[in-house]
Amino acid sequence: MNFLGWAASIQQRTEVALELALPPSHISPTRLHDAMRYAVLGGGKRVRPLLCHATGDLFKATLHSLDMAAIATELIHAYSLIHDDLPCMDNDVLRRGKPTCHIEFDEVTALLAGDALQALAFHVLSSHSLDVDLSHQLDMLNLLATASGSRGMAGGQALDIASTNQQLTIAELELMHIHKTGALIRAAVLLGAHCGKATSSELDQLSHFATRLGLLFQIIDDILDIESDTATLGKTAGKDVAQNKSTYVSLLGKTQAKELAVCLLHESHAALSSFGDRALRLHELTDFIAERNF
Amino acid sequence: MNFLGWAASIQQRTEVALELALPPSHISPTRLHDAMRYAVLGGGKRVRPLLCHATGDLFKATLHSLDMAAIATELIHAYSLIHDDLPCMDNDVLRRGKPTCHIEFDEVTALLAGDALQALAFHVLSSHSLDVDLSHQLDMLNLLATASGSRGMAGGQALDIASTNQQLTIAELELMHIHKTGALIRAAVLLGAHCGKATSSELDQLSHFATRLGLLFQIIDDILDIESDTATLGKTAGKDVAQNKSTYVSLLGKTQAKELAVCLLHESHAALSSFGDRALRLHELTDFIAERNF
Repeated sequence: MNFLGWAASIQQRTEVALELALPPSHISPTRLHDAMRYAVLGGGKRVRPLLCHATGDLFKATLHSLDMAAIATELIHAYSLIHDDLPCMDNDVLRRGKPTCHIEFDEVTALLAGDALQALAFHVLSSHSLDVDLSHQLDMLNLLATASGSRGMAGGQALDIASTNQQLTIAELELMHIHKTGALIRAAVLLGAHCGKATSSELDQLSHFATRLGLLFQIIDDILDIESDTATLGKTAGKDVAQNKSTYVSLLGKTQAKELAVCLLHESHAALSSFGDRALRLHELTDFIAERNF
Repeated sequence: MNFLGWAASIQQRTEVALELALPPSHISPTRLHDAMRYAVLGGGKRVRPLLCHATGDLFKATLHSLDMAAIATELIHAYSLIHDDLPCMDNDVLRRGKPTCHIEFDEVTALLAGDALQALAFHVLSSHSLDVDLSHQLDMLNLLATASGSRGMAGGQALDIASTNQQLTIAELELMHIHKTGALIRAAVLLGAHCGKATSSELDQLSHFATRLGLLFQIIDDILDIESDTATLGKTAGKDVAQNKSTYVSLLGKTQAKELAVCLLHESHAALSSFGDRALRLHELTDFIAERNF
């Protein structure tokens, strides 16, 4: 199967798995469940599930385990977007081409939907249906909790807010992004590896790969924020400049930011070299993320 | 050791365990970590840790496992209070005798501190240091996730918000409380039991006990809200009436609400009868919760 066919099949099975994991709309509290489903289903590029599956493919992990790990990362991602868009954070009205959760519902419902989606991620990942060693499953839960918490994604959001109207150094910007988006991207890769039987040396290599890829992902995001438009992005374009945030583009200029992206793309591929052809899907996905034409 | 001495020792070791589990203030992002520590440490009655330890006592569970389970429930409880107090929810300024987290810090920091505390709860409970069967530990994680999510605490908060300015039936009120406060109280009891080697029949009995105790806890809360003052409660008194919320007192009147509390107290004790003298601490703690003079 070519890459685009593979990606479409993963996106489709992710949608089905999310649909099954989310509480049905007709069950009480219905408004909360509607909001959770609204924020998660029918949108998003599913980058984290794709990473999880592409890494699992390297180790011939079972698809069911990968589905559970993949949707756990996607549920965390979806909750973070809901809370990010709240009036006290980015106060945004558009996400994935639709009104944000607190606009479509209300602020309280959006807050609680985010909270409940985080709990659901850990519920999914602690299911007995996973086909992995229990000790590895505990590692996976611990990894996801670290990636989501104050030393991971939530901490990165705090650093991001604190840096508004501040001129960061490149090192500070990198630190913020390693937490804010990088931690969960890394978790998606490592959860995929844990679903297989990756050795600790393989986990180290994949961790290095994922860190470079996470930064690449962010630079592309920064470039798209100024080069693309709201309709294409499905979220408000030009937000970084409007909010006076430090970005790779604002600190380096567009040309140098693009050069750094090329450099990180090479580093990402190089980090996978010891896996040889087995890492085909990860190489393809890395290129795809660099192009971001989906 | 008498009950008060035992309770003080559990509260003290809970404080130490929380202190160790929380990220240090000097580590970045410092403001977020400060807010997390502010909201968790040095306050609260630690009802859920007491319940967890009292139940574990029944099964001679190891204290370290109980500490981890206990603080996992307390971290979830603390995060729910932060989010509950936010302007879009109850908009409250006083908690545990101190300014609420968003007053002491700011709204964004409070939101993220709550988010990070939820992740930390799952981080703690997925630690390899617990002295329990891995399969049971997975059950414990699954139980805590269910109790925290849309079919548990977060769902109860959604029902609570939806019921503001509505006259509920007693059945609807009970359903709301079984989720909002009951789910986590039940989780604290069952996690304590899982730390020991409780049988499934024992878990059923304890689940029944915890459900009755959770409702008792809530009725006492409703009575205190109108009978006590802000200084004694450490949180804003008279809030239910001010927010026009249905409570046991508003639906039944004070006399009948107190009669129902006595009835639930008897039911709680009765639910423990098959455990005999082994459940001494749980009986004592049940009386203590009914008196709420601490």
